[in-house]
Amino acid sequence: MITGPHSMNTISFYTQLIEDEIKNLALPQDPASLYEPVKYMMGLGGKRIRPVMTLMANEMFGGEMKAAIRPALAIEMFHNFTLVHDDIMDHSAIRRGSPTVHKKWNEETAILSGDVMLVLAYELLSDINSDKLPAVLALFNDSAKKVCEGQQLDMIFETRNDVTIEQYIDMIGRKTGALFAGSLKMGALIAGCSNEDAENMYRFGLQAGIAFQVQDDILDSYGQSGIIGKTVGGDIASNKKTYLAIKAYETADSAMRDALNLLASDASISREAKINKTLSIYNALSIKQQAEETREQYYGMAMESLDKVHIAETEKQSLRNVAETLINREK
Amino acid sequence: MITGPHSMNTISFYTQLIEDEIKNLALPQDPASLYEPVKYMMGLGGKRIRPVMTLMANEMFGGEMKAAIRPALAIEMFHNFTLVHDDIMDHSAIRRGSPTVHKKWNEETAILSGDVMLVLAYELLSDINSDKLPAVLALFNDSAKKVCEGQQLDMIFETRNDVTIEQYIDMIGRKTGALFAGSLKMGALIAGCSNEDAENMYRFGLQAGIAFQVQDDILDSYGQSGIIGKTVGGDIASNKKTYLAIKAYETADSAMRDALNLLASDASISREAKINKTLSIYNALSIKQQAEETREQYYGMAMESLDKVHIAETEKQSLRNVAETLINREK
Repeated sequence: MITGPHSMNTISFYTQLIEDEIKNLALPQDPASLYEPVKYMMGLGGKRIRPVMTLMANEMFGGEMKAAIRPALAIEMFHNFTLVHDDIMDHSAIRRGSPTVHKKWNEETAILSGDVMLVLAYELLSDINSDKLPAVLALFNDSAKKVCEGQQLDMIFETRNDVTIEQYIDMIGRKTGALFAGSLKMGALIAGCSNEDAENMYRFGLQAGIAFQVQDDILDSYGQSGIIGKTVGGDIASNKKTYLAIKAYETADSAMRDALNLLASDASISREAKINKTLSIYNALSIKQQAEETREQYYGMAMESLDKVHIAETEKQSLRNVAETLINREK
Repeated sequence: MITGPHSMNTISFYTQLIEDEIKNLALPQDPASLYEPVKYMMGLGGKRIRPVMTLMANEMFGGEMKAAIRPALAIEMFHNFTLVHDDIMDHSAIRRGSPTVHKKWNEETAILSGDVMLVLAYELLSDINSDKLPAVLALFNDSAKKVCEGQQLDMIFETRNDVTIEQYIDMIGRKTGALFAGSLKMGALIAGCSNEDAENMYRFGLQAGIAFQVQDDILDSYGQSGIIGKTVGGDIASNKKTYLAIKAYETADSAMRDALNLLASDASISREAKINKTLSIYNALSIKQQAEETREQYYGMAMESLDKVHIAETEKQSLRNVAETLINREK
């Protein structure tokens, strides 16, 4: 257990701690074909942002690390459950450089292993002190529902051409923001903070999550493939409704809108040409700048929410660093 | 709230109560495409056995009906979640005479609506008194994991020819028995019964669940299609590893085993001939009688478990009636 000043723990300290805990996590063994994919998926790595935020929030409010570890793992288990099922729904073959569960095994196994991961998440959560359990469970249920709602909206949006930026922000607020928010509020609740502080931690997470997702959209079109670890322009190639795509469609005049529609529907155009021509339109419309403004706007709101939390500024520094790292990241 | 002698409430009283509660259940509305399938599936009917058992068990031990209703609905929500996902995995088009969720909508929606049903189940469960919450949640987690494990084993068994009766009983004990057991123990725990009684209620449910599933297998091959509401022989036609199929393979001599293998693999044989010839072999081996013996054996064990529960015999009568009705049912 860590007893020194809280702000001294670095992000990599928490990340390593979560990695170690995942490695040592005792999963059921039987049937192996149900639990092997769980182990596989949890072992694929990733940034572990959400559980790190739970641990940090807990420590910020003076909570004991030990009390927050299994709830943090619950959050990471839940997040990985959503990835297993999202990969089936999105027909994705690769996740973090490795085959997705439904490709390595099959769809039936991916559905069922995902299901059991959701149950395992609740099991990890159930270990906390019983006086905290009702509030933590209600929070987790609420975040989990919102993540499902966000994924459903994301899929619906793929079939629509009239999605507004407001609707998009609502969607990523549920799909990404709600679990960031839930992770932080959970850590805070476990430490026993006030309701007001818990709400501001939630808002901080929600707003930071939205900024994080907008940055994700920017990187997919403007990142450097050598850094982001995948080909740039994947979202454009697959006609994904990102912040950039929606903003471009909204800002475009009639001729540019026709050009965007043609690029999206023309099956004969090469992938490279499609991406390059779409990016030219984005550039002409200053879409990247507008996305960055929105990202900064939500980042600013997140920081204001954190400002309102009643603890010493030094205790908030780790979390500010995480948020800044996440939102200004290049991968 | 019911205040009269507990044994006076009939099965149909509890079933109707559950139907009414499901009709009045406030589900989230947005996005409609996520929650409409939940409403649809929950409205398809069915026997509502599991929530009825929760209410009965609770009342047997003198619990207030009101305290058990939302947990009972949690059980039914969970059961329906498993059906939505099982129907995808089993490629089933029809459920209770209506299109399955993935046929009426699509697989993506069925995966995600199923996921949110699992979260909604936990939400319904979370409402109980906080002093009961840890034990009830642990029980629910355990049953939920076992149901996933049982479904996985069921799928694995389809690809194997060496499944033993013991392995089959273990599988149905998880897939069907664990939720019967969990439903009963949950009702009992909510009423505040002793650990010993709770364990015997669990065993009663597990053993009755196994007997119930064996009866299901018998009906699929020997029921009357006009009564069971589907064509007789579906399990045989699809080479399902039922109690009957495994027992026949185990009991058969080498010539009969060859005949069974041929019937299972011969794509040119008509469905009717396949069913009739397989049934002839079952008849020659007295498979139906052996299945009935096993069913009676587990039914007897269930009754013995119920005998050990420390409440007046009159209070147990409703539950005995349910078990008897379920196990000797013709549909």
